[in-house]
Amino acid sequence: MPKNQAWTLASYPSGWVVEDNFKLIESPVPSPKDGEVLVKNLWLSLDPYMRGRMSKAQSYAKGVEIGDVITGETAGEVVESKHPGFKRGDKVITGQRMGWQLYGCAKGETLTAVDAERAPLSTYLGCLGMPGLTAWFGMKEIGAPKAGETVVVSAASGAVGSVVGQLAKAAGCRAVGIAGGKTKCDYVVKELGFDACVDYKAGNLQRDLKAACPKGIDVNFENVGGEIFDTILPMMNTFSRVIVCGLISGYNATTPYEMKNIRSILVNRIRMQGMIVFDWNQRYPEARGALAGMLQQGKLKYRETVAQGIESAPKAFIGLLKGENFGKQLIKLA
Amino acid sequence: MPKNQAWTLASYPSGWVVEDNFKLIESPVPSPKDGEVLVKNLWLSLDPYMRGRMSKAQSYAKGVEIGDVITGETAGEVVESKHPGFKRGDKVITGQRMGWQLYGCAKGETLTAVDAERAPLSTYLGCLGMPGLTAWFGMKEIGAPKAGETVVVSAASGAVGSVVGQLAKAAGCRAVGIAGGKTKCDYVVKELGFDACVDYKAGNLQRDLKAACPKGIDVNFENVGGEIFDTILPMMNTFSRVIVCGLISGYNATTPYEMKNIRSILVNRIRMQGMIVFDWNQRYPEARGALAGMLQQGKLKYRETVAQGIESAPKAFIGLLKGENFGKQLIKLA
Repeated sequence: MPKNQAWTLASYPSGWVVEDNFKLIESPVPSPKDGEVLVKNLWLSLDPYMRGRMSKAQSYAKGVEIGDVITGETAGEVVESKHPGFKRGDKVITGQRMGWQLYGCAKGETLTAVDAERAPLSTYLGCLGMPGLTAWFGMKEIGAPKAGETVVVSAASGAVGSVVGQLAKAAGCRAVGIAGGKTKCDYVVKELGFDACVDYKAGNLQRDLKAACPKGIDVNFENVGGEIFDTILPMMNTFSRVIVCGLISGYNATTPYEMKNIRSILVNRIRMQGMIVFDWNQRYPEARGALAGMLQQGKLKYRETVAQGIESAPKAFIGLLKGENFGKQLIKLA
Repeated sequence: MPKNQAWTLASYPSGWVVEDNFKLIESPVPSPKDGEVLVKNLWLSLDPYMRGRMSKAQSYAKGVEIGDVITGETAGEVVESKHPGFKRGDKVITGQRMGWQLYGCAKGETLTAVDAERAPLSTYLGCLGMPGLTAWFGMKEIGAPKAGETVVVSAASGAVGSVVGQLAKAAGCRAVGIAGGKTKCDYVVKELGFDACVDYKAGNLQRDLKAACPKGIDVNFENVGGEIFDTILPMMNTFSRVIVCGLISGYNATTPYEMKNIRSILVNRIRMQGMIVFDWNQRYPEARGALAGMLQQGKLKYRETVAQGIESAPKAFIGLLKGENFGKQLIKLA
């Protein structure tokens, strides 16, 4: 008889997340009520936004409370269905309420059936999932790059950034990544096809970014924030766009980074917009279909870092926040 | 025989502008070449943007060089015309290249004929001029306030801010101003019809602004920047808009104010956009016509601070940068 295991919040992190903030609990596998579906989770997605939920600070979504299962999406298989839209064996991705656990019941409306023949199941958490959709809507709806423009994206080897750069190339733009270390930068240029990638750990961010963007920057897809963002701002061209998608560099800071170069917004008439992908959730099928088409044509490359077993989740998550992952960070649950 | 007098740049300010940065020179009244018009300037407009031109720092327009006449628009009367579109006695407003002087020749294309019967000539430098147009396009094209929303504007008693608030009221919004001192705040509420005005000099900006905006802020028309802007940002609602029009609090600073609350852009999906009114210069007649209509109907109130004679310009400009003016700052030249 299988047992459920779930990671819950033991304490709120102050500053950096530590493994003691999590507690693994065991419980019976639950039974679905009417309208619900029992999912066996095969893959757990780890994403930077989860750090925001492990906090009492006001944000766009309710935070996790002590004892709650940590927020997170999974890809899995239907074990038992009391919802007419799903049957045993269906492959699905779940909403964030599923959380870091082996089994869970969810209302049918919160699940999305996916075609695991068309693309590997795990990609529905990566380039065809929330990160890929984030890149898609940010670029289409805010960045709106035109051929010949320069697009800069930070965390370029990550799940979102890697798609952003490939969408920029598909739009005929110069794609410039920012990533930490030579290995990631080489991957971004040689495997993903970016025109350049700047290693922010090399210590010459401003100089190297200027060299990589000889015509300035027209679109900045911001995943990192802090000093990287502040260095980019003065290099933005007239009428350029900034997609504020993530500020991971500040998620574990106890005091916020202080931005010095706000004046560039005025001088260069920058349009800057914060985004949460859920705001476009009615349009996911359209975007997922387009991304899946690119994937099948070999025009959307991706990389995964897979940690094995639910036990590995807290450590892998801490590594993700420190940039130790390479591509999409996943936990293989079964 | 009249003489021309002009204020030129004697030295670049470092930090606060001082009177020694200016030098008054005398010269013969110039003669227009073919296609040019000689204008006798009757009113000189003083505006915060001029501080940006008195600098070697890169901005959206070329700076003033040592010995050049200080940038500025005027309202005046045609003395002699060698352009078919203008004749002696016509009332005109000039482009910024006219500058701080009593007489000047300008290409006919840079002049705009105005109807001084419809509204006083000076208003074409204020609520019907560049400041009014700035308020108009910022609100229409970026802020896009909907009835019932809350609009906050800093420098609320100034030439731009006063129009912003009255446009907000005309759109059915709650208009909240920020100004320095009780006299200005009283004027903003009692004369201009704002719903509330917060005195930033009273020392409780955050508390007072929260009280004045019980439903948060949907549109922030930012004229001041710095601490005021940073206090507003966390109070912005989901899907709110920020018009970055001016950052006067930083214009005389030697190091930039450091913004702490950038995270709100992400969390609240704020759309923030820098603006320079010239970007809409093809649409000035439409906007000026609408504002003139409001003025004639008594729905657009304004206030002017008038200093007498060209000698008074540097001192009045320094006062403007310190917020000592009350409404539109003008110099009456003749």
